[in-house]
Amino acid sequence: MDNTSFERIVEHGCCGGRQGFYRHDSRAIGLPMKFAVFVPPQAANGPVPVLFYLAGLTCTEETFPIKAGAQRAAAELGLMLVAPDTSPRGANVPGEAANWDFGVGAGFYLDAVREPWARNWRMESYITGELRQLVAAHFPADLARCGIFGHSMGGHGALTLALRHPDLYRSVSAFAPIAAPSLCPWGEKAFGGYLGEDRSVWRQHDATALVEDGRRCPPILIDQGLDDQFLPTQLHPERFEQVCSDGQPLTLRRHAGYDHGYYFISTFMADHLAHHAQYLKG
Amino acid sequence: MDNTSFERIVEHGCCGGRQGFYRHDSRAIGLPMKFAVFVPPQAANGPVPVLFYLAGLTCTEETFPIKAGAQRAAAELGLMLVAPDTSPRGANVPGEAANWDFGVGAGFYLDAVREPWARNWRMESYITGELRQLVAAHFPADLARCGIFGHSMGGHGALTLALRHPDLYRSVSAFAPIAAPSLCPWGEKAFGGYLGEDRSVWRQHDATALVEDGRRCPPILIDQGLDDQFLPTQLHPERFEQVCSDGQPLTLRRHAGYDHGYYFISTFMADHLAHHAQYLKG
Repeated sequence: MDNTSFERIVEHGCCGGRQGFYRHDSRAIGLPMKFAVFVPPQAANGPVPVLFYLAGLTCTEETFPIKAGAQRAAAELGLMLVAPDTSPRGANVPGEAANWDFGVGAGFYLDAVREPWARNWRMESYITGELRQLVAAHFPADLARCGIFGHSMGGHGALTLALRHPDLYRSVSAFAPIAAPSLCPWGEKAFGGYLGEDRSVWRQHDATALVEDGRRCPPILIDQGLDDQFLPTQLHPERFEQVCSDGQPLTLRRHAGYDHGYYFISTFMADHLAHHAQYLKG
Repeated sequence: MDNTSFERIVEHGCCGGRQGFYRHDSRAIGLPMKFAVFVPPQAANGPVPVLFYLAGLTCTEETFPIKAGAQRAAAELGLMLVAPDTSPRGANVPGEAANWDFGVGAGFYLDAVREPWARNWRMESYITGELRQLVAAHFPADLARCGIFGHSMGGHGALTLALRHPDLYRSVSAFAPIAAPSLCPWGEKAFGGYLGEDRSVWRQHDATALVEDGRRCPPILIDQGLDDQFLPTQLHPERFEQVCSDGQPLTLRRHAGYDHGYYFISTFMADHLAHHAQYLKG
């Protein structure tokens, strides 16, 4: 890893800590990448637990810090918050920005195997490897105490990365995750494009299939709005709930009157941070 | 007022209440205007106090709901939050969008008297008249219990409207307000453009001059970051503090490490809502 390329873009005082934005030349991605870090005030006294947040389709590393309102609870609980971008940018793959649900802003937190995506679309390696090392090198982070959560496509990312890397994450949660991507249009498009036609490969990146195939992770908290416009076609939490009944601890909360956006997320953010703190600080 | 033009754009469930965005044909402005309203859960039991938030240069009615993180505290305290846009839009005045600190997105919460601005740039009439009536007509709002606050240009707006209309606002606060606009480049540009060259007219829209000239309003809370890039040239809270020492209650808090942005604002938002609740619910 080329640590020398690490660069601070800007840092803002926030809730007694600081909210910063950073840029580096990513070896895993082969391109410059940006990410956001909230450092809580407790970090002045030593390394703190780290919570990785994965955002949804079309988002960037700025979405979570600006819209989710997580810093206050993180400052109270002493949690560091790390928010990466949602895909490579600037690869100049033909058609990369032609769709809002595939390509730029839609990395799906996996390593693509199909061309022309395989060179740069390697978000799983980036999140589970290089980004962790970068955070450890530049921030007072205790990487032995890591959690992961996310929204929609990022909820899919959080669930699958937690299930695929149980050694890395001690806590996991999701807002309105794409919980069975092999069964929905977003997932079929992304998996077909990034992974090819072999559905046995898809199963390795589908939270419902992973649990069905025996993978387990720490107890999961999921919040789902019942006015979510994508619930009927894209998310399928009921499928995930069904397979989790066989030994994967899951709390799935359904909320009348809430949609798919950040007003929903910010409403339940403090509950999620408390969930993570229970495992990261316990 | 043409209530028939009132239109709901979208409403989101948020913190047990709802965050909505609305549009109407404004008589005061002569153009369509948008505004945001957060209705707290307590409104189900009857009218609640209303807090008007005025945003800063370049902002819109979306800035506050998305970035300030105010809904949680408002839901706890039972306060309605109303956030208007920062200027007329679509007037097609020549050059209206040529500057980020004048014209579109920069209404300065006054009624312009100079052409070509006088026809549409009438934000004071809009905020203190038409918008209040519209809120009263369409939301469970108790207009006898109103407060006003804002940021930067909107902090200037909150202070001056509270001082000019003491009968309308029972509570007032500001984040990093332009506290003596006659003495700073932003204010000189705006006042010269909207009001003309007569500085005695400027004094009627300058919070420091208004207090100096004997106006008074309820006790004011101001938060100011000491890393604010605009503090040295544009804001002058020390001038305002000086004139307030003669009988205008003011709590001016200075915060090391905080800048001019919404990470600063969100940090102290709950304190401001508690300040308002003290007067609106007491």
